[in-house]
Amino acid sequence: MNVTTGEIQAPPETEVSAVDGLVAAASAAGEEWAQTPRVDRARALTIVADRLDAAADDLVPIAMAETHLAEARLRAELRRTTFQLRLFAEALLDGSYLDARIDHADPEWPMGAPRPDLRRILVPLGPVVVFAASNFPFAFSVAGGDTASALAAGCSVLLKVHPGHPRLSAATGSVVTGALTAAAAPDGLFTLLYGDEAGRAALLAPQVKAGAFTGSIRGGRALFDLASSRPEPIPFFGELGSLNPVFVTRSAAETRTAKIVEGFIASFTLGAGQFCTKPGVLLAPADSGLTSQLAGSRLPEPAPLLNSKIADGFRQRWDSLASHPALTVLATGDGDDHEEAPAPTVLRTTAAALLENLDELFQECFGPTVLVVEYDTNDELLAVADAIDGQLTASLIAELDDEIVPELVRRLVPKAGRLLWNQWPTGVSVTHAQQHGGPYPATTAPATTSVGTAAIARFLRPVTYQGFPEQLLPGELHDVSPSAPPRLVDGRWQL
Amino acid sequence: MNVTTGEIQAPPETEVSAVDGLVAAASAAGEEWAQTPRVDRARALTIVADRLDAAADDLVPIAMAETHLAEARLRAELRRTTFQLRLFAEALLDGSYLDARIDHADPEWPMGAPRPDLRRILVPLGPVVVFAASNFPFAFSVAGGDTASALAAGCSVLLKVHPGHPRLSAATGSVVTGALTAAAAPDGLFTLLYGDEAGRAALLAPQVKAGAFTGSIRGGRALFDLASSRPEPIPFFGELGSLNPVFVTRSAAETRTAKIVEGFIASFTLGAGQFCTKPGVLLAPADSGLTSQLAGSRLPEPAPLLNSKIADGFRQRWDSLASHPALTVLATGDGDDHEEAPAPTVLRTTAAALLENLDELFQECFGPTVLVVEYDTNDELLAVADAIDGQLTASLIAELDDEIVPELVRRLVPKAGRLLWNQWPTGVSVTHAQQHGGPYPATTAPATTSVGTAAIARFLRPVTYQGFPEQLLPGELHDVSPSAPPRLVDGRWQL
Repeated sequence: MNVTTGEIQAPPETEVSAVDGLVAAASAAGEEWAQTPRVDRARALTIVADRLDAAADDLVPIAMAETHLAEARLRAELRRTTFQLRLFAEALLDGSYLDARIDHADPEWPMGAPRPDLRRILVPLGPVVVFAASNFPFAFSVAGGDTASALAAGCSVLLKVHPGHPRLSAATGSVVTGALTAAAAPDGLFTLLYGDEAGRAALLAPQVKAGAFTGSIRGGRALFDLASSRPEPIPFFGELGSLNPVFVTRSAAETRTAKIVEGFIASFTLGAGQFCTKPGVLLAPADSGLTSQLAGSRLPEPAPLLNSKIADGFRQRWDSLASHPALTVLATGDGDDHEEAPAPTVLRTTAAALLENLDELFQECFGPTVLVVEYDTNDELLAVADAIDGQLTASLIAELDDEIVPELVRRLVPKAGRLLWNQWPTGVSVTHAQQHGGPYPATTAPATTSVGTAAIARFLRPVTYQGFPEQLLPGELHDVSPSAPPRLVDGRWQL
Repeated sequence: MNVTTGEIQAPPETEVSAVDGLVAAASAAGEEWAQTPRVDRARALTIVADRLDAAADDLVPIAMAETHLAEARLRAELRRTTFQLRLFAEALLDGSYLDARIDHADPEWPMGAPRPDLRRILVPLGPVVVFAASNFPFAFSVAGGDTASALAAGCSVLLKVHPGHPRLSAATGSVVTGALTAAAAPDGLFTLLYGDEAGRAALLAPQVKAGAFTGSIRGGRALFDLASSRPEPIPFFGELGSLNPVFVTRSAAETRTAKIVEGFIASFTLGAGQFCTKPGVLLAPADSGLTSQLAGSRLPEPAPLLNSKIADGFRQRWDSLASHPALTVLATGDGDDHEEAPAPTVLRTTAAALLENLDELFQECFGPTVLVVEYDTNDELLAVADAIDGQLTASLIAELDDEIVPELVRRLVPKAGRLLWNQWPTGVSVTHAQQHGGPYPATTAPATTSVGTAAIARFLRPVTYQGFPEQLLPGELHDVSPSAPPRLVDGRWQL
């Protein structure tokens, strides 16, 4: 392989007329992949991870050139990405994601009719179209979590490249395809698509069985509507928008003022504020000193946003927010270049004004700006919790003996996929218990996650075999199965 | 309680203007119910089951009068319904449906950044609108599987009554409500809605978080579209239409002709052919004797369909099918009353004709009629398997040494939620490993089931707590938890 910065060109858009053929190839490859033993699928994911790690010195410079992100961040993100591939390989070997269940025939089943022999397991959905994100050019792009979990599940992937980093996508795609070939995976298992039209055409192709997406509310909703409007509707796992509100109680604000200010600034400016989990709104008690300390804080130097389109979008949204009569500028950093590198800013309003103007003020602004909302009473804090729509995260900065805490937690559970206690929401760990999702508009599928091993469940569906002879059953459903995953047998879990 | 046949009147349609208030009450009740310990929710479901059993002598006569179904069938269906409620109570006590996961903080997590303490559990979605079915006035109606699984999950239920059995619905609803009150469940937890307009208004209410439905493709798709078009789209678990094809191999047809004919007739005429799992299409080898034996068989006496609307629909669909030039009538029973009790009939075509006219001929006909499709070659059998859309079930009547079997199974897995081996698809056992679902148009949510304990998963979503003190966590996520369900702790399942 040879993917130095200058050599990979951004490929042209995929012809819409070519999409049907690519989908057909993905479908055929997927059928073979679905039959491929888990151990071989796990090995393939590991080879992809190994080759991506080996290509870091080639890939990272392209990513730096295309996204303006720093080398250290991109190297860490690539490590995260390859760790994620290996973690899905482990999940494959473990097999508990298959939710295997065996009910033996039971003539005395108390339902009133004999129970037949029933054996249930999850099988791959079929080809998946993944729409890559702009802001994590490795971890939520070509070889990111959606690709890794769909391949692990046994599905083929049509990856719609994000236009923000086309050369990196081509280079990453070439590493992935090479690794899959080396692992003897079927040709056509993983295919890059360039251009919105090709992506939409693939999502509409009858053989495609699911979509996955990370991006804006507007773009994600349009694709969700397309997936839902098909003659055969398909699930669309879209991660759209989130403000990730942070609720600071009065006692916390008064006892840990400096620490909260420092943590908040670090979190909202991480990656120039271009994280899905950026804490976009902070609820602070009025007159607690938090606001004044924020106003007097030094904000980090401006960093260039991912590209000029995103910078333009940020400035438009920011202008519209900042000109709202209910908002004032609390703090702003130095050195705004008035082009791609905006200075971090903190806007300010009151809880009463926020509740009166929720639709206009409670809006994600993708970039280094946040809104501090001053509240007077705990009732106002609860009212904001009740008023907001679905979020990826909600954070409590609080003391354990704060009277308001249990009620606040109770009201935030219906609102967010992840609740944090005295921590900041940026930095989403890839683990078994992670939940990266949430009620709409945070996602279009609140019962799923796009990060962590549970993400594999999005691309599976159950099939039950009734009265089948063992030789026709998947090995995981044999009575005696050397490689049996954890199974529910006659109502009892067996490890 | 006093619900004899004559006393319960069909209630008037629910005013659309009243729906918002009913939804608000359901939402408030749901918040309380979600906090109610599992053991108490289980007890409430058991009380509902006990009271329904005790009311059998009141309920069954109303059901007989409204649905034309026989007493024995209705008593068995009620037993199945109360068994189902008790099975969900057991699932609640077991708690493994919560998919509880704990990842302890790990400074050495190989992702490249320390892992925070993450604890994940499933929580109720919120109020659910359930649209009752016509054909199982107990098991898929007011106190049926959707209601039982939603209540078990911790959700409140707005039950849109099926117009085919309004008095039975009112009577059953009164038993359920009385039992929930006796169990100290919150008022408003379970509410009956009458009329399509009220049902649609509830599905559009912002506080409602899911819909569940069993019925026709047309009705179900319209509601799915409504649920998907909301400002906040919500999941819609619709079971729509299925033909449940049966694939008979040549060797099976030749060695077990009489037994197959007998089983097929019994299955397709069960409940006057008004089962979602009726085997509507049987693929039979040409010249195997199966067709001629079917032609010479005595079909059961006509039985009245559920109501005149369904009888009209059956006759219209049947006339349109039977007048198709590619179909002939192979067998018909005696005694058709030309009104509500049509005689069972068997239509006949060839695999070649079916493949040429798939959209017209491969159509569910809800009632006592089936289509026998004669095939010449195994390739034709596979072509039919490939051509059909999603099904609840697909059955193989075959010998283990039939060459075609492994390939046929492989091609049917993507098509159906349940595969049967030498068994008939009617009679869906309520168990842990059951799968009653399938790719569209069998359902709008192929990754879910509406029968069996896994049905509870439809009404839940995950929440992860990061860095939380134990006293603010649900008991199931404490490190030491006396009533801990099976949990995934640091990547290992613990019972």
